Parts: sequence; C-alpha cells; structure tokens
Amino acid sequence: MLPEALLVSAPGKVILHGEHAVVHGKVALAEALNLRTFLRIKPHQDGKVRLSLPNIGAKRDWDVSKLQLLQTAFLDSGEPTAPTPEHMEKLKVFAGFTTDSSDSERLAVLAFLYLYLFICRKQRPLPSMDIMVWSELPTGAGLGSSAAYSVCLAAALLASCEEITGRLKEGVTSAGWTEEELNLINRWAFLGEKVIHGNPSGVDNSVSTWGGALRFQGGNISSLQRIPELRILLTNTKVPRSTKALVARVKDRLVKFPEIMNPLLASIDAISRECERVLGMMAVTPAPEQYVVLEELIDMNQHHLNAIGVGHASLDRLCQLTASHGLHSKLTGAGGGGCGFTLLRPGLEQSVVESAKQALTGCGFECWETTIGAPGISLHSPSSLKADVLRALNGL
Amino acid sequence: MLPEALLVSAPGKVILHGEHAVVHGKVALAEALNLRTFLRIKPHQDGKVRLSLPNIGAKRDWDVSKLQLLQTAFLDSGEPTAPTPEHMEKLKVFAGFTTDSSDSERLAVLAFLYLYLFICRKQRPLPSMDIMVWSELPTGAGLGSSAAYSVCLAAALLASCEEITGRLKEGVTSAGWTEEELNLINRWAFLGEKVIHGNPSGVDNSVSTWGGALRFQGGNISSLQRIPELRILLTNTKVPRSTKALVARVKDRLVKFPEIMNPLLASIDAISRECERVLGMMAVTPAPEQYVVLEELIDMNQHHLNAIGVGHASLDRLCQLTASHGLHSKLTGAGGGGCGFTLLRPGLEQSVVESAKQALTGCGFECWETTIGAPGISLHSPSSLKADVLRALNGL
Repeated sequence: MLPEALLVSAPGKVILHGEHAVVHGKVALAEALNLRTFLRIKPHQDGKVRLSLPNIGAKRDWDVSKLQLLQTAFLDSGEPTAPTPEHMEKLKVFAGFTTDSSDSERLAVLAFLYLYLFICRKQRPLPSMDIMVWSELPTGAGLGSSAAYSVCLAAALLASCEEITGRLKEGVTSAGWTEEELNLINRWAFLGEKVIHGNPSGVDNSVSTWGGALRFQGGNISSLQRIPELRILLTNTKVPRSTKALVARVKDRLVKFPEIMNPLLASIDAISRECERVLGMMAVTPAPEQYVVLEELIDMNQHHLNAIGVGHASLDRLCQLTASHGLHSKLTGAGGGGCGFTLLRPGLEQSVVESAKQALTGCGFECWETTIGAPGISLHSPSSLKADVLRALNGL
Repeated sequence: MLPEALLVSAPGKVILHGEHAVVHGKVALAEALNLRTFLRIKPHQDGKVRLSLPNIGAKRDWDVSKLQLLQTAFLDSGEPTAPTPEHMEKLKVFAGFTTDSSDSERLAVLAFLYLYLFICRKQRPLPSMDIMVWSELPTGAGLGSSAAYSVCLAAALLASCEEITGRLKEGVTSAGWTEEELNLINRWAFLGEKVIHGNPSGVDNSVSTWGGALRFQGGNISSLQRIPELRILLTNTKVPRSTKALVARVKDRLVKFPEIMNPLLASIDAISRECERVLGMMAVTPAPEQYVVLEELIDMNQHHLNAIGVGHASLDRLCQLTASHGLHSKLTGAGGGGCGFTLLRPGLEQSVVESAKQALTGCGFECWETTIGAPGISLHSPSSLKADVLRALNGL
C-alpha cells in the first residue's frame, strides 16, 4: 500500500468522424476530451472503505472485514475476462441497494466493488481507503463518463496495490504510464465498463486510457501517432435520445435504400481517412489551411449524418448558430440530440467564442470550451490540479 | 395564316433530383412546372408586327416591310442549327436597343426576331401580327422561364405558318401536338434558347415542350412514361446566385476531395434512379407509402446538396420552416439561394399548406402552390384559360 494519497484523472471522448458508419465496418476516429474525471485514493488503517461520488450524490462505506468475506466467496477463479451473472448477483446482494438508489449509483458502486475485489485480490488484509471521484463530464451524454470512471478506478487501484507505479518522480507534477501498464489499466477498465454497460465496444475506455486520438474499424483499435490538440466548444443540447434506436434507424435506411446509403457510408469513411491524414500532417508541418480542411470535413459529415437520418432540430440549431459566427460544428456520437462540437481554429478572437457560447446557452444548451486530443489517464501531484478540482476532491 | 387568334402555353421546369451531379455524368430528373407562360398571336393585315411583354414592361413594333428587308439580308442558308455572330449582330442593329433596354428585353426581342424571321421564312409577305406574352414564372430564378418563352414562340409561329396544326378540334378546349410536331417545336425553341443563353443544355426547352418528367444523363434526354402529377409548394428565396460559380465550387470540391465526393455523387445518382422507379410505380399502382419514399429522397438529396457545397442559409430556413409543418423540401436547380420546392402529399390539410405559405412569405420568400409533371406546350381555346390569364393577355 502506498503511504500517501494518490491523484489520477482520465479524459472523456468525442467521436470526431465515423459515428454510425463504424457499425457498418467503416473507419471512425475518436479523440480524448479534456473534460476529465478525477479520483483521489487516501489509504487508511481504520478498517473501512469509503466511496464518495459527489456528482451523483452517492456516498457508501464498507467494513474491510465484510469485503474480505465477500471476496472469499467470490474469487473462485483467476483473473476474470467478464463479470458473470453470479458475480453480479453476489455484489448486488452485498451492496444492498435501497429503492432510493439511482441507476447511476447502482452501476458506479457495482463497478467499484468489482474492481476493488479483483484488483486487490492478492492483498492480505484488503486495503482500507477513502475514494473520492469527481468529474467535469456530464453523465449519459455519450462523452464516455463511465469509461473515465472505470479507467480512474482501475489505475488508482492498480497503483495502490503496486501493480503499476503510483509515485511521481521528484519535481514532476503529472505523468502517464508505460505501454505495458496502460494495457493493464485498460484491461481492468474494460471489465468495469462491462459491469456498467454489459457489452461495451471498448472504444471509450481505450480513448480514456491512451488519450490522443484512436482509429477504430471492424473491432480493431489503434492509436494515432502524433496528433495536434484541437480547441473546441463542446455543446450538450440535452435532448435525450436512444443510441439503440438511432443505430436501428440507420440499419433500416440501409436496407431500404442500399444503393443510396452504401456510397454515403463510403463517403463518411473517406472523411475519416482524410481527417486522419490531415491530423498527421498537422503534427509534423502545421499550416492554417489544414484547419480549413478540418472545417470542410466537419460540415460535410454533419450533412451526411443528417442524410443517414440521425440529425435533430436541436443539432441544426447548434450548427446554424455557430455558422453565423463563422464556426463549423457537427454532432458527435449517436446524434438525434445529445452533443455536438465546434472547432475553434487558432487565432480565433475570444469575443467570437464568448458570443457563440452565449448564443448556445441562450438555447438552453450546456457549453464547455475545452480541447480534444488530450492526455489519457494521468497521475498528478496535488499542486498540478486546479483549485476547483481540489476543492471538489476535498468534498468542499 | 390562321384567321383567328392563337393561344398557347408552356410550363416552366424544376429539377427534381440530380442538379449538379448531372454535370459529372449522373442521372437527373426534371419535371414540367405548372407555372406557365402564355402567348397569344392575333393575325393582322396592317403591315405591323407588335410584341408585348408586360412582365418585363417591354413593347416593340416593326413594319413588316422592314422585317422583309432584314430577312433578305439574313437568309443566306437553309434551316439554321445555331445563331451565328453575324445573325446576332444584324438583329441587334435592326432592333436598335437604347441604353434603357434591360438585358431581359434585349434577349427576348432578339429571340423573337430570330424565330420570326426563320420560322416565317417561306411566307410572302411576312405575316402581320400582335404577339402578347405573359408569364406566371419569375425570371432568372432557374425555373426555365426563357425556355417557356422560346417554346411558346416556336409553337405559335409554327402554327401561324401552318407548319404544325393551329386549330383545336370541335368541343376541345386544350390540346397538345403529335410527337413529330413536338420535335419541330423543340428544335426551334432550342434555337431561341441559344439566342438567349449562348450554350444551353437543351433540358429546359425539352421539359417545356414535352411536359411530364424527363431523365437526362450525359447529354441524353428521354421522357419518363406515365408519371403522376405531384402537388408542390414552389418557393423563391429571391437570394441571387451565380450558377457558374456554384458549378465551379462543386468541381473544386471534387478535385480537392475525390474520395469523399465521388461516392456522394453516386449516392445522388441512386436517389434520382430510385425516384424514377417510384414515380413509375405511382402511375401504375399508387400507394401512400410511395409519398413517404419521395419525402425521404427529397430530404437525403437536400443534405447531399449541402454536402457538395451548394446550400444556403435561406434554403436551410425554407427546409426547416416546412419541416416544422411536417413537410419535406429541397433546393431545385443551382442552389446557393434561388428556388426550393416542398412536396404536398395527397390528403394534406389545406390549413397546413396555408400556414406553411404564410411562414415562408413571412421570411420574404415568394411562394406558389402548383404542380409538377404538368402538360408541355399546349394549344388553348380562350374559354379554357383562367380569367387572370385572359386579362393579362388582353393587356388589362
């Protein structure tokens, strides 16, 4: 067990291009969103494990001795590959949810217990600790908040058990992990995602672990080498939607109009590939016209997403409002509402950004000025965190 | 020379699907628009030819004897295939335009003189007549108003010279012509279009001559057999645009992003083909779900036209306003402003149409409730024409 408190953070994700098309075997690009989830573990010797999730108003604690009993009845096999129905049933009984517990709370607690019991399985006795998790990410908005939570939990618990490093070098305020350590974090985080989502794609936890940009196609995920961090406005229209229903709508349209839809998906695929190419060039020889291309790709893909049937009036409004400020936006993720992003090119006057934000919030949308292509899971010194984050982690 | 007055009308055109894509070898569908140009010829014996074009405030008259002199200096060869620069020069000198003459007036007068001199070339003396042309079509809006004018002129002059029939059968109030006669009308109308436009595609005059729907691809034009007449709202945003600049914009984007644009054009091509197929089915076994398909095709193509770069904020507004009334719209023609149409399915409540029209005119747009798939060039009895048309042709 590490002597001091441990601070980690993990980013959310946005789909840059290729949402929906990826379901049909096309390339998609996802980028790490610099709205982050922060987690602090404070080791204790008081025989308690306490979990605080202020974003969803949840606070739980357990005796280590009882967790130990649960673990004994639990660890019948080696390292798990997926949560079994029996595991889940035992955890639910142990957690003893009341009718007051929200779905978010249930899933967050189950994922924590699952990861705690398995990751700390070699520890005797099980470690005593306070865990505080606070996030800048809205939940249920398709921004990978559950993956960021799982990645933070996996990294912090692995570091606590010294399965990966948990110490910053002298004078360093933030750091990542080695490729091997990241693979371990990602594997455990994926299990956390499985507890929460049942059958996740693995994209969200991969982006949150590695950061930067990932390319995925046909189940294969690979990291893009050297990409620029891009400034964006991220906007949540707050219009609720069902990803499943939207995926089904695209499928139906593909069956109804294959001659129209197949080339359209091919065009989206080409947009993702062109974007990948331009991002690669931007990291090596940046030039202003590359932003113009990124803007054109954003516009074209937004029209394509409308054409495949996943647009929404709120997203049209978002795109038009930002277009009236000379900015380019597209939906990100499932569509049909949810979130969109707006590219902010370098040198853009802050007054334009403020005016666009004001117009967007005036529509009832929520709006964040942030970046994509952000670092993945990171270890922090307290001094490297912003005051509001520290305050939140201190429960103030 | 026919003893009585002769009344003809010809429709405008809308591009249903395939504008811009047709420039790159894809299928386009054009339909005859039931906003019509009406022309009345009244034969005289007073040695004068009078041309009245109340829409553009133009009124000209010429002595037949002077036209005869011009013709002698003019008809050096047989039937023309295109206006030569020498022809155009002589006509301009003869017409003696003042600096007051608008471009529309110059071109309309030149086309008239050209067709009159050539079509009536076998008449000795040249016929004396009053010609009144009045149109429901706005000019310069991409709706084929010049073609409707040329087609009316060609048909009426050919009928006057008894090169085609000019008499309605007893008890018949409107009639078309035989295929052979239509070919003759179309050939002459194309020459009129050449006087006006220099290098027209021949689509507009073909649609105006044959009516219904035409398919064109790679310079080939063919008439669709048996199609339904469709009710539409036609809206002119009145935003001026340059067709040439918009065609160039698409070309530039195709050069810049071939992998993205080529499949997109293929998708537009498939939309035109699917529309052709559905229109064919509608004429044989009509069913309500065919209108749903037409609406889906309209929506998808509008997004595609935005994606190729020929959309405009005014057209977005048009589409959104009508969408808020449950109606589906797309731009027609060059885009970048100009006109759009909205499909009105059968059984739609008139209150919805009125409310949509009111919203559109509230944006400063001009709006017509009309049909497409209308009859081509037609011969009319005065009793078959609406009172406002008759009043306009009587110069009231």
